[in-house]
Amino acid sequence: MENSYVLYHDQIIKSGSIPVDPEDRGYLFGDGIYEVVFVYDRKPFAFNEHFDRFEQSAKKLELAMPYDIATFKHLTEELITKNNIVNGMVYIQMTRGVAPRNHLYERNMQSVVTGFAKSVSLDSIEKSQSNGIQTYLTEDIRWLRCDIKSLNLLGNVMAKRKAADFDCQEAIQHRDGTVTEGSSSNVFIVKNGTLKTHPATNLILNGITRQIVINLAEKLQIPVLEESFTVDELTGADEVFITSTTMEVTPVVQLRGNKEQAYKIGPVTAELQKQFKTQIQQNTSAMKS
Amino acid sequence: MENSYVLYHDQIIKSGSIPVDPEDRGYLFGDGIYEVVFVYDRKPFAFNEHFDRFEQSAKKLELAMPYDIATFKHLTEELITKNNIVNGMVYIQMTRGVAPRNHLYERNMQSVVTGFAKSVSLDSIEKSQSNGIQTYLTEDIRWLRCDIKSLNLLGNVMAKRKAADFDCQEAIQHRDGTVTEGSSSNVFIVKNGTLKTHPATNLILNGITRQIVINLAEKLQIPVLEESFTVDELTGADEVFITSTTMEVTPVVQLRGNKEQAYKIGPVTAELQKQFKTQIQQNTSAMKS
Repeated sequence: MENSYVLYHDQIIKSGSIPVDPEDRGYLFGDGIYEVVFVYDRKPFAFNEHFDRFEQSAKKLELAMPYDIATFKHLTEELITKNNIVNGMVYIQMTRGVAPRNHLYERNMQSVVTGFAKSVSLDSIEKSQSNGIQTYLTEDIRWLRCDIKSLNLLGNVMAKRKAADFDCQEAIQHRDGTVTEGSSSNVFIVKNGTLKTHPATNLILNGITRQIVINLAEKLQIPVLEESFTVDELTGADEVFITSTTMEVTPVVQLRGNKEQAYKIGPVTAELQKQFKTQIQQNTSAMKS
Repeated sequence: MENSYVLYHDQIIKSGSIPVDPEDRGYLFGDGIYEVVFVYDRKPFAFNEHFDRFEQSAKKLELAMPYDIATFKHLTEELITKNNIVNGMVYIQMTRGVAPRNHLYERNMQSVVTGFAKSVSLDSIEKSQSNGIQTYLTEDIRWLRCDIKSLNLLGNVMAKRKAADFDCQEAIQHRDGTVTEGSSSNVFIVKNGTLKTHPATNLILNGITRQIVINLAEKLQIPVLEESFTVDELTGADEVFITSTTMEVTPVVQLRGNKEQAYKIGPVTAELQKQFKTQIQQNTSAMKS
């Protein structure tokens, strides 16, 4: 990220000049939250949804907002413009702030906001979407507040590493045989034309793409069940796909690990992929006009 | 920590000059580990045990050791000397290092080591040990690798905050009715002269003080069961105490929350407290001679 611009508190500054304090609770406890917003054709996608969730995460952890959401959005737009991002992503992080190390936090500390933007080639996303990805089945060892988009990500990190060791691009996690989500995505299965995905409880992060896909399916009159499903249902599914901000709707063609299963890219996945792309285009056009 | 010395990589430098990178995985994912070593009369206590565990935590997360344990210990001693710590603690942290944000880590990155030392008044510890502390019963929401002393501490942080809101100094966590540990301590109960504490599984951090207390009890021929126990056993116990590096052996006199229970400081707790202090003195004398 040389010669780029980054966010620090409410300033857009040159990268390399953010002085993170070793007593920042983000560094000592992972005590903070984040969001990743995707940028298509210079426009942030699902902008309100991401910052609504950001605000929710802050509330759940009692992090003080240093300024209002409108300012967060304005600064995000400035990051996009100043870094000349056409297609790419913006990462915004907020930690509880700096204090002598103590598990016990004081409320209303001075939060520390940081952020960066980077260009992403849409080609690699397109490739995964055309060919599908391999996934690795692993136990979900994370905490019980996965609904908070927090910086406590070691469980996700370990799952992703394990997946990569088996030449898989994503892990699919299960808790005692119930499929929860990917290490950085939500998981959907299709069986006899019906979609199923884990309900938005404390056990998963309620992905923005997940929510959009559920809405799209409902519009298309594809039945959607937000119900937990088992590993056996996963292996027995007609189609499997994952959703995430950076992966959009991506088909799963292989499951590895304790269970091995190959999948074909099916018509429901393909249709939702197409509709999602249309929604991106509509968003871009609407914001341009 | 003004005018103090801190550790950065393998250097002892003036505080305020550690440049933590916003792309440090410790800051983005809580991807790192730590240890807290107590200092009595200028001498680190249970020095080998802490750094053995540090090495274990690093292995479990595949963090690369930037230098050997002897060097870690030497630098810790230098922190104690340079900061003129008589009684106090040293905090040593190691993160996986700096890289563009990606859940997937590369092995053998350049770890980032930081650390600080601070004086602690033994009076406040003595006071808690004489009077006992209040504790708050709460659900254990943490991940399933609590055996790793990692920086993913939000579950502990939330438990500690909740405890403090009920005027308690510590939280006692339970998972589905089984008592695991405190938010920054291990929990022991005494019933009919027998000690019980959660076994050292993936669900708790195997505290150094916990291990020393188990050894002391065995020497004193107090039966010790490393077995999980229920919330009902907790409320029905004759004595309850917590152990930690900074709290040593501290009696619990009150449980609050869903269950309310008062406890007296009993003879087993008092004896273990006394023996633990003797061990500290022996350690200090031995290192002096």
